[in-house]
Amino acid sequence: MMPEIKKYSNISSFKSANKLLGIEISSEKEDLICYSFDSSGFKGVLPTAVAWPRNTNEVVNLVKYANENNLQIIPRGAGTGTTGASIPLAKEAIVISFEKMRKLLEIDTANLNVIVEPGIINGRLQREIQSFRLFYPPDPASLDICTIGGNIATNAGGPKALKYGVTRDYVMEIEAVLADGNVVRAGGKTYKKTVGYDLKDLFIGSEGTLGIFTKIRLRLLHLPADSTTLLATFTNLEASGTAVSKIVASNIIPSAIELMDKSSIEAVENYKPIGLPSNVEALLIIELDGNADSIKNDAEIIVDICNSCSGDISVAEDISERNKVWEARRSISPALFYIKPTKISEDIVVPRNKISTMLAQLRELSEKSGIQIVSFGHAGDGNIHVNILIDKKNHEEYIKGHEIVRKVFEATIRLGGSISGEHGIGITKAPYIDMEIKERELELMKGIKNLYDPKGILNPGKIFKAS
Amino acid sequence: MMPEIKKYSNISSFKSANKLLGIEISSEKEDLICYSFDSSGFKGVLPTAVAWPRNTNEVVNLVKYANENNLQIIPRGAGTGTTGASIPLAKEAIVISFEKMRKLLEIDTANLNVIVEPGIINGRLQREIQSFRLFYPPDPASLDICTIGGNIATNAGGPKALKYGVTRDYVMEIEAVLADGNVVRAGGKTYKKTVGYDLKDLFIGSEGTLGIFTKIRLRLLHLPADSTTLLATFTNLEASGTAVSKIVASNIIPSAIELMDKSSIEAVENYKPIGLPSNVEALLIIELDGNADSIKNDAEIIVDICNSCSGDISVAEDISERNKVWEARRSISPALFYIKPTKISEDIVVPRNKISTMLAQLRELSEKSGIQIVSFGHAGDGNIHVNILIDKKNHEEYIKGHEIVRKVFEATIRLGGSISGEHGIGITKAPYIDMEIKERELELMKGIKNLYDPKGILNPGKIFKAS
Repeated sequence: MMPEIKKYSNISSFKSANKLLGIEISSEKEDLICYSFDSSGFKGVLPTAVAWPRNTNEVVNLVKYANENNLQIIPRGAGTGTTGASIPLAKEAIVISFEKMRKLLEIDTANLNVIVEPGIINGRLQREIQSFRLFYPPDPASLDICTIGGNIATNAGGPKALKYGVTRDYVMEIEAVLADGNVVRAGGKTYKKTVGYDLKDLFIGSEGTLGIFTKIRLRLLHLPADSTTLLATFTNLEASGTAVSKIVASNIIPSAIELMDKSSIEAVENYKPIGLPSNVEALLIIELDGNADSIKNDAEIIVDICNSCSGDISVAEDISERNKVWEARRSISPALFYIKPTKISEDIVVPRNKISTMLAQLRELSEKSGIQIVSFGHAGDGNIHVNILIDKKNHEEYIKGHEIVRKVFEATIRLGGSISGEHGIGITKAPYIDMEIKERELELMKGIKNLYDPKGILNPGKIFKAS
Repeated sequence: MMPEIKKYSNISSFKSANKLLGIEISSEKEDLICYSFDSSGFKGVLPTAVAWPRNTNEVVNLVKYANENNLQIIPRGAGTGTTGASIPLAKEAIVISFEKMRKLLEIDTANLNVIVEPGIINGRLQREIQSFRLFYPPDPASLDICTIGGNIATNAGGPKALKYGVTRDYVMEIEAVLADGNVVRAGGKTYKKTVGYDLKDLFIGSEGTLGIFTKIRLRLLHLPADSTTLLATFTNLEASGTAVSKIVASNIIPSAIELMDKSSIEAVENYKPIGLPSNVEALLIIELDGNADSIKNDAEIIVDICNSCSGDISVAEDISERNKVWEARRSISPALFYIKPTKISEDIVVPRNKISTMLAQLRELSEKSGIQIVSFGHAGDGNIHVNILIDKKNHEEYIKGHEIVRKVFEATIRLGGSISGEHGIGITKAPYIDMEIKERELELMKGIKNLYDPKGILNPGKIFKAS
């Protein structure tokens, strides 16, 4: 069964670059390069091949083939992950790309759910169901390019998590291929269900290490009737944190409360000027949705709260102004590359009322080290994207940057938080996982990994620290 | 370490009936009897002892003791479970009761969560946090007596699941004692978190077979400003199902849509007359919550929908009328014992738009067999409590009753549903689990059980069919 291997640069490659077991596959160097890195900026090892299966059966055949030939399987959505979870770490690996499995298979408007293939783009799903007045809330900043399969692998969040929860809250059923090639189904067609152990939630956030998702049923909501966006600016960073706490403590749940600090505002204005104010320390983007009356009431309360915290607040006049504000928020991450060539992206989360404390500690870390730290994120959830900007070619900066990472995590854990809110662990955070997860819990996780994948062929080297 | 054993009736008992390792314990026959059955009506085996630990450390010591002495550990909340999950099946067992671990340890009003011990009563928790205008939604019918630990062990639901989700949606962190006596923590202080595998959700719904919960952090919401209850009656059972589908398809999410069929109305009226209408085939209790304006708007739409389905609808005038309606709903289960001595309680769930079909099939099953079937439950979630009323001393009825169970499950699975919505599997449904969970998935579940509890001392014989 194994195709004849020829040497191709320093890796083995399939002689026939086009098909393996009828499945589209390539070992052209250009393809191998493209599929060996992701948004973490981390470069992996060129794999043996990249495959583009078209259905569950082809995934099964690939996994069986990999199994027989001791090849690793690296499942990959759109490569927008920031922790290196989708990059190959050995040449004896096949990357499975889901670019040919992106269909919306079924919309069940009566029971409010859809069945999709894992390669479907989050934003495309959202647009397609909108015509049915349906709504899939999880909205990572990369929603126009990231895939639902990848979202599930990392339990992705997004601004709307504050009101609507994260990806986990919308996954009803997963069809997955196990390391032995068996196809399993976890979850079901109904939201309620208590029949044995929760295999579905074990897959969510497992970063491709327990099984390869091939079909997914997602729960939907009705599209909110209306929504509005408020922009509040603060000349004091901590005041913005206080405003967030007060809003959350009021009986209002905005659909989003996003924070941008001074550095992120400047970064966006330098990259794609949209007229964000330049003389402020922090900015909150607050979105409300629901029916028009309740939005109006809630907006009034929020204006009062922001004013009481010395904030300056305005409402987006129309849809274009609103889109501009959200575009600014979503542009932060790419904009940061214009400041420094290397961005160490962290994704910490602290209890909501600790945000001000955390922001103050981040500023202190930046001032003491002389390294720029840009903070933004989902303030309502206590989830801050901490970006440490360095030039990795500058050895001193590189060392300092990684010292800061550890200090940020230490501060996070001290405040009762978590080192990853919605990005997962991948390879970049694997060295730190035991700061948060204790030994016996890690043993259980490794035991589960071993149960699901005794040969260790599914995305090895991710999540767990190499022992 | 092992205390001297004396023979006590047909079981071994601890010589000192009061303390073991400083922990309150009893092997008095009266205690053993009380802790050997639950609401399933199923009688277990008298265990060796019942213990009442007061803290995590005492649970650890009990588990270590059980481990050294090859005794099974049977964790038990209030024994309100309907599947026999908390009853001992061998005399070499210690029942751990959480009656001495029912403290509300901490209320964090800023971050909207509480820490509780597993033995706290659901209804007591709800009342205590109400003074802070906080809200814990999961509300099983037994809320005034059932414990949070038991709710988590079965992933309990309740009427409010329609809008607010089930127990799983509110558990943030679990401290648990493993079979080897190690204490682990799963989840965390923040809602968002993606750090390794989801050990927390694996505990939820595990029915005491993976670990013993000793502390729990629960997420809370703000108490809704207002609420109202509507009562709709239908002279045609299927019309009530249609009304449910139409309500769910409208852009309204009631906090509950509960269904009672003719038999359950009659049963309640015979048990505790509250003046429910007697000449109808079905009744829906619809609850709305939120602000007064939106409740008013939504109520008008629901009235129109029910009228369009030939329903007769009224609004509860005041709080006492409302409480009466809900008391009726919560009395169904005890009321059924007045009809027949044995009640086989099932808890199926089907996709919402299949409710009418399912109700029709249940009626047909009842008519064909001559066995009374009483159906009620959480119609908005497709979750129907099917009660098959027999006298188990009548052998023919007993056999027929169990034939009906299998037929009900077959119909449920055919409609894409699940054999347990919120009660779990325990021992009563264990013989049927493979109707829903396929072989490879069951293997994974058993593998997880073996990883967590290699000696099989934690609540053995539950969930999985004896092989």
